[in-house]
Amino acid sequence: MKNYLKNSHFIDKVKQNVKVTGARLADRHLNLAVTGLSGSGKTAFITSLVNQLLEANDSAELPFFSVVREERLYGVKREAQPNLSLRRFEYERAMQALDAQPACWPESTTGISQVRLHIRYKKNRGLSRYFSEDALLILDITDYPGEWLLDLPLLEMDFAQWSQHCDQELLSPERMQLAGEFVTLRDSLDLTAKGDELALKHIASVYTEYLNQCRSAGFQLLQPGRFILPGELAGAPVLDFFPLSDVQVQQTSQRGAVKGSNQNLLHKRYEHYQEQVVKPFYTQHFKRFDRQVVLVDCLSALNNGRAHFNDLQRALNWLLTSFEYGKSNILSRLFDPKIDKLIFAASKADHVTPDQQSNLVKLLDSMLHNARKQMQFDGVATESTAIAAIRASQAGKAVHQGEDIQILQGTDAQGTPIRMFPGDVPAKCPGDNFWLTQGFDFPRFAPPQRLEQQALPHIRMDRVLEFILGDKIR
Amino acid sequence: MKNYLKNSHFIDKVKQNVKVTGARLADRHLNLAVTGLSGSGKTAFITSLVNQLLEANDSAELPFFSVVREERLYGVKREAQPNLSLRRFEYERAMQALDAQPACWPESTTGISQVRLHIRYKKNRGLSRYFSEDALLILDITDYPGEWLLDLPLLEMDFAQWSQHCDQELLSPERMQLAGEFVTLRDSLDLTAKGDELALKHIASVYTEYLNQCRSAGFQLLQPGRFILPGELAGAPVLDFFPLSDVQVQQTSQRGAVKGSNQNLLHKRYEHYQEQVVKPFYTQHFKRFDRQVVLVDCLSALNNGRAHFNDLQRALNWLLTSFEYGKSNILSRLFDPKIDKLIFAASKADHVTPDQQSNLVKLLDSMLHNARKQMQFDGVATESTAIAAIRASQAGKAVHQGEDIQILQGTDAQGTPIRMFPGDVPAKCPGDNFWLTQGFDFPRFAPPQRLEQQALPHIRMDRVLEFILGDKIR
Repeated sequence: MKNYLKNSHFIDKVKQNVKVTGARLADRHLNLAVTGLSGSGKTAFITSLVNQLLEANDSAELPFFSVVREERLYGVKREAQPNLSLRRFEYERAMQALDAQPACWPESTTGISQVRLHIRYKKNRGLSRYFSEDALLILDITDYPGEWLLDLPLLEMDFAQWSQHCDQELLSPERMQLAGEFVTLRDSLDLTAKGDELALKHIASVYTEYLNQCRSAGFQLLQPGRFILPGELAGAPVLDFFPLSDVQVQQTSQRGAVKGSNQNLLHKRYEHYQEQVVKPFYTQHFKRFDRQVVLVDCLSALNNGRAHFNDLQRALNWLLTSFEYGKSNILSRLFDPKIDKLIFAASKADHVTPDQQSNLVKLLDSMLHNARKQMQFDGVATESTAIAAIRASQAGKAVHQGEDIQILQGTDAQGTPIRMFPGDVPAKCPGDNFWLTQGFDFPRFAPPQRLEQQALPHIRMDRVLEFILGDKIR
Repeated sequence: MKNYLKNSHFIDKVKQNVKVTGARLADRHLNLAVTGLSGSGKTAFITSLVNQLLEANDSAELPFFSVVREERLYGVKREAQPNLSLRRFEYERAMQALDAQPACWPESTTGISQVRLHIRYKKNRGLSRYFSEDALLILDITDYPGEWLLDLPLLEMDFAQWSQHCDQELLSPERMQLAGEFVTLRDSLDLTAKGDELALKHIASVYTEYLNQCRSAGFQLLQPGRFILPGELAGAPVLDFFPLSDVQVQQTSQRGAVKGSNQNLLHKRYEHYQEQVVKPFYTQHFKRFDRQVVLVDCLSALNNGRAHFNDLQRALNWLLTSFEYGKSNILSRLFDPKIDKLIFAASKADHVTPDQQSNLVKLLDSMLHNARKQMQFDGVATESTAIAAIRASQAGKAVHQGEDIQILQGTDAQGTPIRMFPGDVPAKCPGDNFWLTQGFDFPRFAPPQRLEQQALPHIRMDRVLEFILGDKIR
């Protein structure tokens, strides 16, 4: 009895301490950023993530999500988002599209949007599990265009360096044929002449048209990112610049820019873009992110052929420079961010047969490693995986030349059933010779017709949830 | 001879002093703001203003613009605008529309835009006129929506006061019939219940639809202004609020808002709108303005009848509170602006016969005075006038019932010639009885076909230029 009292007193003290410490650590709030290169399925990903959490205790299948497996999740609710000036992520509209007859993929978002969830759970670590202490994790998910992440390296480049990078991209034959009059117009511009706003505006509009053409053709590494989604900057002079050619860069580096000249206007606009467009995004939003998901559509890049696949790899390389350990880590130096986990997810894993999914992860890994030789991040845990946020196909079997092979079954956009073997996924980046002899043709499936009140079917969203949230809801 | 040398020495010293003083006064830069209630012809006004200045020494007719009359203007040039993040005012595109066959009115602008002019002239005051000193005035013209000016009084109102104002507007029969389901939806909302984001979003979208209906019907006093031109705020929760009814305001004033309730969400959004949407515009832009032009389309209001005319008068009243002398001058207290001249211009003066133009000015004066009883502005010179930025009609004469009367000649949008007597303009605000017996029917003219390289024809733009610029280019 005496012992019991003593213990109880001790435990009360500990309990108090735990509460104080818990509040002090402020471990109750997690800012998750989700981005992806164009067409990678950001909207489907966030819709499914919210849906899995809302349905976690009911119809969702999340065996690898520990808080669910251990039956410690009380419930998840959507709450009013913290930043009232950001677009609300339209979860309900996305679900409406998926619930339509026939089901449609949700419309993709433009710009930045936000959703907040309250996750109530029972603690399961340290002493607190003896007291069945309830806890709340506030999860803020921010959705932003991958183009903005691709703009980050600009902060460390001057106009000449950036021009050289863009000009190199432009010189590939696949891009050059989309450039229209741009090269001719740019090369004939007299940089020393008095600034001609209308001429610069015209050349910039031709350059923007080239970027839009590249985007339609499936290229990812598009610079500057805001030219494609200008928003309220449409028509503003800050978007009226473009990269110079190597020859022009050399000429201009030998003489200073005369005040008011074309060269001077281009310089000033590039610098304004760095300071007033790129930087504010990182200061206002990126600084607060704790974890980052980057979605990558490897399959469309394979379908589109060598130039597009290499472009995707260069785009990944380009954005990895922002996270890389060492002197080139712009993020740490300029913004002191808190990101401690980074996940690269190859999306649309339901568009290959189950036996090919491990290859899809290996391919993504190979792209990331080939890009940077080795990924060294300072205190950032990194994972790559392959997911289907909303599984649109079923795996089946068929006999082909006397052997059992895996096939996929789904429907196309017109509702016609598809049964097919979509082909093998290479386990590493295909070499140039490979492309000469072979192409890829992965299918496009319509979304599944959802059963009433059922969670969205998925592939590996539970592992993603565990990686993002697992350690925060123990 | 001795005297001459002495004088010359003296004059040299003075000249030096004048230069130093001139630079110190920084009298070389003028920020002109142009706004107008919807459809008042802002784009035509700025286009004409730029055109008159560019053509001032050639084809423009500007007898009342002193710098031109005194032959002291060397030239005017368009230069790169200072704020690279603002849209460039598209003067060239407006001129293209006017030069098309047939001529079209330029497309109206949305949001904020800017144009910079360099005005080189010879000084004509003090001692400097003896030395034909050249001077430069930099004129920045900023075009912004009148709706933003109408949002200024919000900064001094809490949510309850603002709701009462809006509800009163809503109760007029002409507006009520445009409100659709809004009143029913709002009145059935449980303000004490837990905040329902989707319900508030829906009611706010019905309210926004009502505002858009009001705008299409020609009403001007629309609150909040950003609901009509949301820009990048589209879909953000900050725009998901609406005014409460008088009954709701009384109920809510008796109890505090429960955290997280519908009432609390509406309050928080209103306050976010004040702080994060309205205030930044005044801090970033309005603070710098030296002079303000407000364009008013009295004739369309007369055409639309009593409710619309009274609405326009209330809108003028509403925005005059911002400039008024005394304790209610929000502008001075919050933003310390430099505005020292304010001009109200009744636009489209070419749509009445010349003998009626003085009545148009009197009518505008009467609207302003009726609105505020007396205009008392602290150190702000105010003028009202009637102008045609681009004159679209010619005055002519006809015999009517044996008497000579003035008529207008022009063409309609289809190019058909119009010859008409558009009727008298009342010299003061018509009383209620007047509206029972009579209406107005002022015409709409297509723009004139411009002769090549000729300045745009106008009415009284030279007087406006003199009021805005005269004292700065002496």
